[in-house]
Amino acid sequence: MRVHDQHYRTVWIEGTVVRMIDQNRLPFELAVVDCATHRGTAAAIREMTVRGAPAIGAAAGFALAQAFAEPGVDPTAARAHIEATRPTARDLFDATERVWAAAGSAGDRAGAALAAAQAYAEASVESCRRIGEHGAQLVADGARVLTHCNAGWLATVDYGTALAPVYVAHGAGRRAHVWACETRPRAQGGRLTAWELGGAGIPHAIVADTAAASLMARGRVDLVIVGADRIAANGDVANKVGTLERAICAREFGIPFYVAAPPSTFDARIASGAEIVIEERSADEVHYQSGPDADGVIRRIRVTAPGSPAVNPAFDVTPARYVTGYITQTGIHTAGTMPLPTPA
Amino acid sequence: MRVHDQHYRTVWIEGTVVRMIDQNRLPFELAVVDCATHRGTAAAIREMTVRGAPAIGAAAGFALAQAFAEPGVDPTAARAHIEATRPTARDLFDATERVWAAAGSAGDRAGAALAAAQAYAEASVESCRRIGEHGAQLVADGARVLTHCNAGWLATVDYGTALAPVYVAHGAGRRAHVWACETRPRAQGGRLTAWELGGAGIPHAIVADTAAASLMARGRVDLVIVGADRIAANGDVANKVGTLERAICAREFGIPFYVAAPPSTFDARIASGAEIVIEERSADEVHYQSGPDADGVIRRIRVTAPGSPAVNPAFDVTPARYVTGYITQTGIHTAGTMPLPTPA
Repeated sequence: MRVHDQHYRTVWIEGTVVRMIDQNRLPFELAVVDCATHRGTAAAIREMTVRGAPAIGAAAGFALAQAFAEPGVDPTAARAHIEATRPTARDLFDATERVWAAAGSAGDRAGAALAAAQAYAEASVESCRRIGEHGAQLVADGARVLTHCNAGWLATVDYGTALAPVYVAHGAGRRAHVWACETRPRAQGGRLTAWELGGAGIPHAIVADTAAASLMARGRVDLVIVGADRIAANGDVANKVGTLERAICAREFGIPFYVAAPPSTFDARIASGAEIVIEERSADEVHYQSGPDADGVIRRIRVTAPGSPAVNPAFDVTPARYVTGYITQTGIHTAGTMPLPTPA
Repeated sequence: MRVHDQHYRTVWIEGTVVRMIDQNRLPFELAVVDCATHRGTAAAIREMTVRGAPAIGAAAGFALAQAFAEPGVDPTAARAHIEATRPTARDLFDATERVWAAAGSAGDRAGAALAAAQAYAEASVESCRRIGEHGAQLVADGARVLTHCNAGWLATVDYGTALAPVYVAHGAGRRAHVWACETRPRAQGGRLTAWELGGAGIPHAIVADTAAASLMARGRVDLVIVGADRIAANGDVANKVGTLERAICAREFGIPFYVAAPPSTFDARIASGAEIVIEERSADEVHYQSGPDADGVIRRIRVTAPGSPAVNPAFDVTPARYVTGYITQTGIHTAGTMPLPTPA
């Protein structure tokens, strides 16, 4: 199954060059950027050229493999540099740990790191493919699925997490309609999820983040599926800010709320969401937006009152009690009964 | 008390010319537009040059007074035209009913209509002033108040509804901090509320609509105060879309949720929120945003995936069970015990 018509994945490595779709230029331009060094790849992660927890993981693994191959680079410092880019997604650390472990025991450290990074990305693709197959059973013919942020193929190496079940159901001929919450401030829902779904021919509509509860209250949502950035041992979920209110409102209206994630997102070493570090990002993400004007020229404009401050937490934590189930590569689990993936 | 340093109100009438602050140009430019005819004023209401339920009411009253004074205009048709501009705010209909009734029994219909419209606006100012005084008791020193959309002086003729208690508390020397939810798609929170608060010197921060639950979960919100567009006999509240999820989340986190409104917003003739007509506005409000670029030139840009549809309900209905209290000109009431304002 290919869910898109691109001839490449979200992020990959050629030789020692990491290549990735520039997600800051989507949906207005599809461009691939090259990162020749681990510092370039780390910058791309920090600036969200590549984003989405599983995609960040793959990129981080590739970055560490680059570091092992770069002359004069201290791998320990490079790893710290890569891990300092974004704190919340578990996948990033899962990837660096695995690549580090593979390199440490090898004669050819650079070769072993590269092989481990490539294997990591391939395993991520396979996890997402299975998530789609398991989760598709939740997407009945005519289902109206609400999602938040972008947890489609762009957020992973391929296939996606939250959107993978929709892609599989669509591929099986079932009609699904997706409500894509805009997901301010960076609007990954209105920009990336909508772009993905449009490309796949899946009916969808963008709604402002303020409209989600209204849709639920009026019986226009059958289920919610979101991705995750880190899932604690008790099932608490860190995900893009706004997920928590989707979860609270879904429960209020009796709508099932699912979280889809590969093993790399589960963090068995933290007991609950209270231990998850929440990234605070620049207030400018709230104050400014970019996009094409009527002539197609990309403009960056101020959208808020000049001089006013803004606060910009990038993630929130949804307690496990709001989660109907976790869509994983091994099936659909509920908190408590869930055999958490553990590091290999 | 003047809560701002402008020498005029949000909307007023001079002779037969209705003048108003152009709220579509705020916060980047403060300009007053003149509407010489009732059709011009109606267009300004429809296009949200003037917005906020009480301000819409005053503008509608002025528009109907204009119609009575315009040669060759059928007042019945003019009233229907004015009432067709925006369906949700009760205040609009309250105003046209009162002006209509005053004109109908008078020898000088135009003069009576104008006097009634002016009296309506003055009564609205007085209502908001009292709302501020009653509501201020809820705003303790150091209180962190979350609000949604703009229910400040710009949304009324003066003083505001939801923000009036904050202005009074601030004037009394109490420190208050306001979280201004951006309120996509039109961003009245990030643009108008923040601009108002900045002008008044009140500490505040803009947050994306997605961040409200995160702030609540982390104990950073002491109370929520919002305005209303229409309140049913049972206390159900129609207000700007997104209010419902603020209310649901506030209850979830044990945070008081107040609705501030003048008598003109209460609609004793409808039993519950199920009867309130919810305005659906153009998808372009979701797709496009306007603001200044780095050179100060106002640009209109696309912020969503080209080709994707959007759905844009402008309001939602918050059931009375989520409302801690209603801040009115007669005091703070709870649903059920509330003596609903009735038409005079």
